[in-house]
Amino acid sequence: MGSELFHSAKAALSVQTLIKPSWKKLAIFSFTPLFLATTSLTANAQEAVAAAPAADTAYIFNTLLFLIGGFLVMWMAAGFAMLEAGLVRSKNVSMQCLKNIALYSIAGLMYWLIGYNLMYTGVDGGYMGSFSFIYAMDPVGLDGADSAALLETGYSTASDWFFQMVFVATAASIVSGTLAERIKLWPFLLFVVFLTGFIYPIAGSWQWGGGWLSEMGFSDFAGSTLVHSVGGWAALTGAILLGARKGKYTANGVSPMPGSSIPLATLGTFILWLGWFGFNGASQLAMGTISDISDVSRIFVNTNMAAASGVVVTMILLQFMYKKVDVTMTLNGALAGLVAITAEPLAPTVAQAIFIGGIGGVIVVFTVPLLDKFKIDDVVGAIPVHLLAGIWGTFIVPLSNSGTSYGVQLIGIVSYAAFTIICSLIVWGIIKAVIGIRVSEEEELLGLDKAEIGVEAYPEFTSR
Amino acid sequence: MGSELFHSAKAALSVQTLIKPSWKKLAIFSFTPLFLATTSLTANAQEAVAAAPAADTAYIFNTLLFLIGGFLVMWMAAGFAMLEAGLVRSKNVSMQCLKNIALYSIAGLMYWLIGYNLMYTGVDGGYMGSFSFIYAMDPVGLDGADSAALLETGYSTASDWFFQMVFVATAASIVSGTLAERIKLWPFLLFVVFLTGFIYPIAGSWQWGGGWLSEMGFSDFAGSTLVHSVGGWAALTGAILLGARKGKYTANGVSPMPGSSIPLATLGTFILWLGWFGFNGASQLAMGTISDISDVSRIFVNTNMAAASGVVVTMILLQFMYKKVDVTMTLNGALAGLVAITAEPLAPTVAQAIFIGGIGGVIVVFTVPLLDKFKIDDVVGAIPVHLLAGIWGTFIVPLSNSGTSYGVQLIGIVSYAAFTIICSLIVWGIIKAVIGIRVSEEEELLGLDKAEIGVEAYPEFTSR
Amino acid sequence: MGSELFHSAKAALSVQTLIKPSWKKLAIFSFTPLFLATTSLTANAQEAVAAAPAADTAYIFNTLLFLIGGFLVMWMAAGFAMLEAGLVRSKNVSMQCLKNIALYSIAGLMYWLIGYNLMYTGVDGGYMGSFSFIYAMDPVGLDGADSAALLETGYSTASDWFFQMVFVATAASIVSGTLAERIKLWPFLLFVVFLTGFIYPIAGSWQWGGGWLSEMGFSDFAGSTLVHSVGGWAALTGAILLGARKGKYTANGVSPMPGSSIPLATLGTFILWLGWFGFNGASQLAMGTISDISDVSRIFVNTNMAAASGVVVTMILLQFMYKKVDVTMTLNGALAGLVAITAEPLAPTVAQAIFIGGIGGVIVVFTVPLLDKFKIDDVVGAIPVHLLAGIWGTFIVPLSNSGTSYGVQLIGIVSYAAFTIICSLIVWGIIKAVIGIRVSEEEELLGLDKAEIGVEAYPEFTSR
Repeated sequence: MGSELFHSAKAALSVQTLIKPSWKKLAIFSFTPLFLATTSLTANAQEAVAAAPAADTAYIFNTLLFLIGGFLVMWMAAGFAMLEAGLVRSKNVSMQCLKNIALYSIAGLMYWLIGYNLMYTGVDGGYMGSFSFIYAMDPVGLDGADSAALLETGYSTASDWFFQMVFVATAASIVSGTLAERIKLWPFLLFVVFLTGFIYPIAGSWQWGGGWLSEMGFSDFAGSTLVHSVGGWAALTGAILLGARKGKYTANGVSPMPGSSIPLATLGTFILWLGWFGFNGASQLAMGTISDISDVSRIFVNTNMAAASGVVVTMILLQFMYKKVDVTMTLNGALAGLVAITAEPLAPTVAQAIFIGGIGGVIVVFTVPLLDKFKIDDVVGAIPVHLLAGIWGTFIVPLSNSGTSYGVQLIGIVSYAAFTIICSLIVWGIIKAVIGIRVSEEEELLGLDKAEIGVEAYPEFTSR
Repeated sequence: MGSELFHSAKAALSVQTLIKPSWKKLAIFSFTPLFLATTSLTANAQEAVAAAPAADTAYIFNTLLFLIGGFLVMWMAAGFAMLEAGLVRSKNVSMQCLKNIALYSIAGLMYWLIGYNLMYTGVDGGYMGSFSFIYAMDPVGLDGADSAALLETGYSTASDWFFQMVFVATAASIVSGTLAERIKLWPFLLFVVFLTGFIYPIAGSWQWGGGWLSEMGFSDFAGSTLVHSVGGWAALTGAILLGARKGKYTANGVSPMPGSSIPLATLGTFILWLGWFGFNGASQLAMGTISDISDVSRIFVNTNMAAASGVVVTMILLQFMYKKVDVTMTLNGALAGLVAITAEPLAPTVAQAIFIGGIGGVIVVFTVPLLDKFKIDDVVGAIPVHLLAGIWGTFIVPLSNSGTSYGVQLIGIVSYAAFTIICSLIVWGIIKAVIGIRVSEEEELLGLDKAEIGVEAYPEFTSR
Repeated sequence: MGSELFHSAKAALSVQTLIKPSWKKLAIFSFTPLFLATTSLTANAQEAVAAAPAADTAYIFNTLLFLIGGFLVMWMAAGFAMLEAGLVRSKNVSMQCLKNIALYSIAGLMYWLIGYNLMYTGVDGGYMGSFSFIYAMDPVGLDGADSAALLETGYSTASDWFFQMVFVATAASIVSGTLAERIKLWPFLLFVVFLTGFIYPIAGSWQWGGGWLSEMGFSDFAGSTLVHSVGGWAALTGAILLGARKGKYTANGVSPMPGSSIPLATLGTFILWLGWFGFNGASQLAMGTISDISDVSRIFVNTNMAAASGVVVTMILLQFMYKKVDVTMTLNGALAGLVAITAEPLAPTVAQAIFIGGIGGVIVVFTVPLLDKFKIDDVVGAIPVHLLAGIWGTFIVPLSNSGTSYGVQLIGIVSYAAFTIICSLIVWGIIKAVIGIRVSEEEELLGLDKAEIGVEAYPEFTSR
């Protein structure tokens, strides 16, 4: 969402707003005066290619950024799978693996069927895009005429679609973690259908699609709110409707239900950290100019430092408060740092990024126990990490990005909360009423793997 | 294998066939008229660089595609290792890890020693390349004269070699999975020596090397047949010669022998899915034009959607047929979708990709039990996934690619079957006769880890 | 560190030494005559961009190389975490996970705070860089004036910082592995603060920062000595001060203490192998010319083949010496091959790379038992892999790189040994004296996870 936030690109921005591109696509129009100049040459593509190599070189770079960013974010699906597989008890591990590969698959299919159009087609400052099926991408084997049109776009539409698609699954993964160990498989997947096909795309259209919040000046670079808080609100709503796991909250207080494999949870966290370079870095949406690639580089640095700060702050707090350094809290500290910097990974100085990520760590340490007070059973700690650190990151954008205001950021945060909670309530409510969302008490005791999958995660290891 | 399949590049193709490039390298010659024009300038490299920046920029992009694709496919070796480690019983996990790192290493060494030359040097429409040792790559620190020749090639020869090399190991990994839990270490690795040094390269030469099948019009973009079916036939032949695991098929029917770790199998599947973007995407062999990078983007989308469809179709079928959603079958559904789309990931529309991948899922659900009927013991389900879905994907190419015919595709499928089965029978037969391929019954019961490795995979976890 | 080693680039080198760039940054100045020519145009950036697309295209490529290389090396942090988690006993697995995510975080923070400046700012042939806080990176949203300066640099400074930063953590990970299972959390992390903020950067300044060893002609392309041996010496010093694990060396000889999870160790090794393409490949520091990208390609091939050779040589030796093929030794064989080729992955022929990596495997097989003779308890085998194979790789550089001498390589090796041992002794000594470094005997028996973390790695699996 990069350079258009800054003065040097404002001119390009004002030109481009006339043709109503989506907000999350603006950056690619603000290349350099050179690029803008070349677009007038593209009437005849053959000539344009010959006369302006920079335009096609930029196109290749921009497309490549989407592809690299895309596969890194796709890899986050594996990260969530491992994180959640590590943090649930062994009797529910197969289920968590299945849910994560299923939700990633469904997210792609729904986003292709309807989601992308709802999010990016004809939003025009409004509240949602076009309700039309199937997004049409570039033709195969472009010839001259296609090239002309594509050079104007600045990137391959298929690469853009791929990059946008992998974001969808992230929102669904958050829900999967919170509701683990007691939600039924198919009702969960049905919710994912609605979340990835409708709720997330409509929410996204408000900002990245160029809708009303984007016009108001709300800013969320890579999705602290649009992805993480939306997923978080959906998870929170589900957790309240679903209730806590049996035995979690008893007369004697909170029973710990430790995860089955810390190394898998650690692996998941590292995968997410790695994927986040794509998540934030490629949200610059362009690397075809030295300005854009330099901004991508800054984003890499800030993203990394926010996470590092989340880790260190969490560890120090834990040592002082508990005399032991809980490793799962620390992993969540890293993730909270990442979520917090996601709303604005470009504008902050490194010191600011360290501050923003560090507060993410503080949020984890103080709100994980708080949720237990309210008896909200969030199995993997996704609500503190994705929802609360997401709110924090979104709110603090104006600290570093002078083009934004705290007021508008708050309006955005509250709007997304209201919309996602209401939609989630309706969808969860209907599913619950019609087919039910929770496994039976016996099935929960037995574990979802035996109850619904028929395959145990670790059949040879003795369980306590 | 990209743009040359389509009309706009046919002219370029006809020019290039005069200089007999290999089929899997054709794409890079069919850049655009611009690039072809510049090749005449390369007599003096210094001048060419100054006058035609597009040629050296394209060279860098093409080489970078090979490197990125290469490391993604290399990563698939880890995917196979984790998938197989998760799907064997814990007493054979160390062995499966060792075999996978060993086969990847051997594949590289053999492909360097002899394989690449057999596959790509001087095939000339024939049945194999040159039987000569050691492929010579670019010199270090190119100077002007080298540059001229290289610009004409369009990419670094070392990057091409690297990308081709990582494919070899995939074929061997397939064999490793099927024959797990009862084959001896060294005889298996000896087979890998022949598979990666001779069988796979000769088979590959027929098509990607520009051999007789390529001349006939057979098409296999990224290796549904050349990699996956070749590996699958070698695995099937080995499985028949080797026999089933003790106790797998008894008078009472089929004994399930569940894998030791579902999360590792899930991780392996996600790794393979990620790596497949390199496997298929970089098989475009070029990204130095906007047409090529756009095609790479389409390939990413189609590859992803075929896998997603494989997952969803498998899950729905399992639910209807068994009332439970077996997670290992679902993982194989994803892989079958990926294998199926590999023969032609570019030409299909997204809807077609979803169809092709979905049938991959159907194949898994119906053929995994079928193999058990024939008492063919395929430990990880590699034969349905790689062989059968590979055949399906290869056969269905003409659905989307009008330059191909079902008849020629069948000829290719049958030819590869015959060649690989015969070669495998000979190699497996000789190894079996001379040194034996199967561990003793006591060793099998004890587990290969104790018998041949001396290191247990999970020494502290009690086995049932 | 690429092309300047060879004759065709010597001219460029001599020009550039006038402006005292750091050694590890030299390559980017030695593009081609074309690039050097364009630098005169950069007085006015706007014009330069229009007139010389090659300069900004090269800038984007070079920056992209740092980013891709950077995320691959960052991923190695996960590799070390998994390798070490797999090779310690289950009672210490959570601790190993925590230490690895913590040290990666600390490394980044310290390198930002002080390390980068100590290593790269104003070394000028001396013994360390500037003792100044916080490295200033590119401004956000570059405008014309910034662009001019940046084009001359040839890459984004933030991307360079990111790439240099991820190397720091590798050195610390080595220490973490050797000292596992008995060192206290916070004293270890305190050592990491000094290692990553001071010891490593000062050591690095001697060579990559353009210090005295670089002026003498010492060569270490990607850090066999600067990263791996420095980490190794720090680990060895710590191991001697810390002593062996209780029960490791008894009157009856050496007690094996097998690792808890071979598949995790295997995964870690594959991750490291993958990351090493970034570690070595992106140490070329540029890919904006066909010469540079071709050299990166060669590095990929040599890196891969050295590792493959390490694997095969180790396996064959183990089979002959022990009749069993220990999988952890084989994994270390791969890593030793990688460490060995790291000092010079570009100049060797593939055959030379196979030789260099193979000797890495020999070193592992023969020195792992040797350490036990001296009762040096190196839990994961990091000293043979990183220290000894690092020395071997550094020493053998002149075999393929005619610009170096065995004598100077030895001077470098000995200097790094002396410096790192002395610094480590001082830091470890002070920490030991003031707060202690070793957990109590009861805590060691109980396991560090219960003692210091409060979270068991595998709470549901029965331990022996």
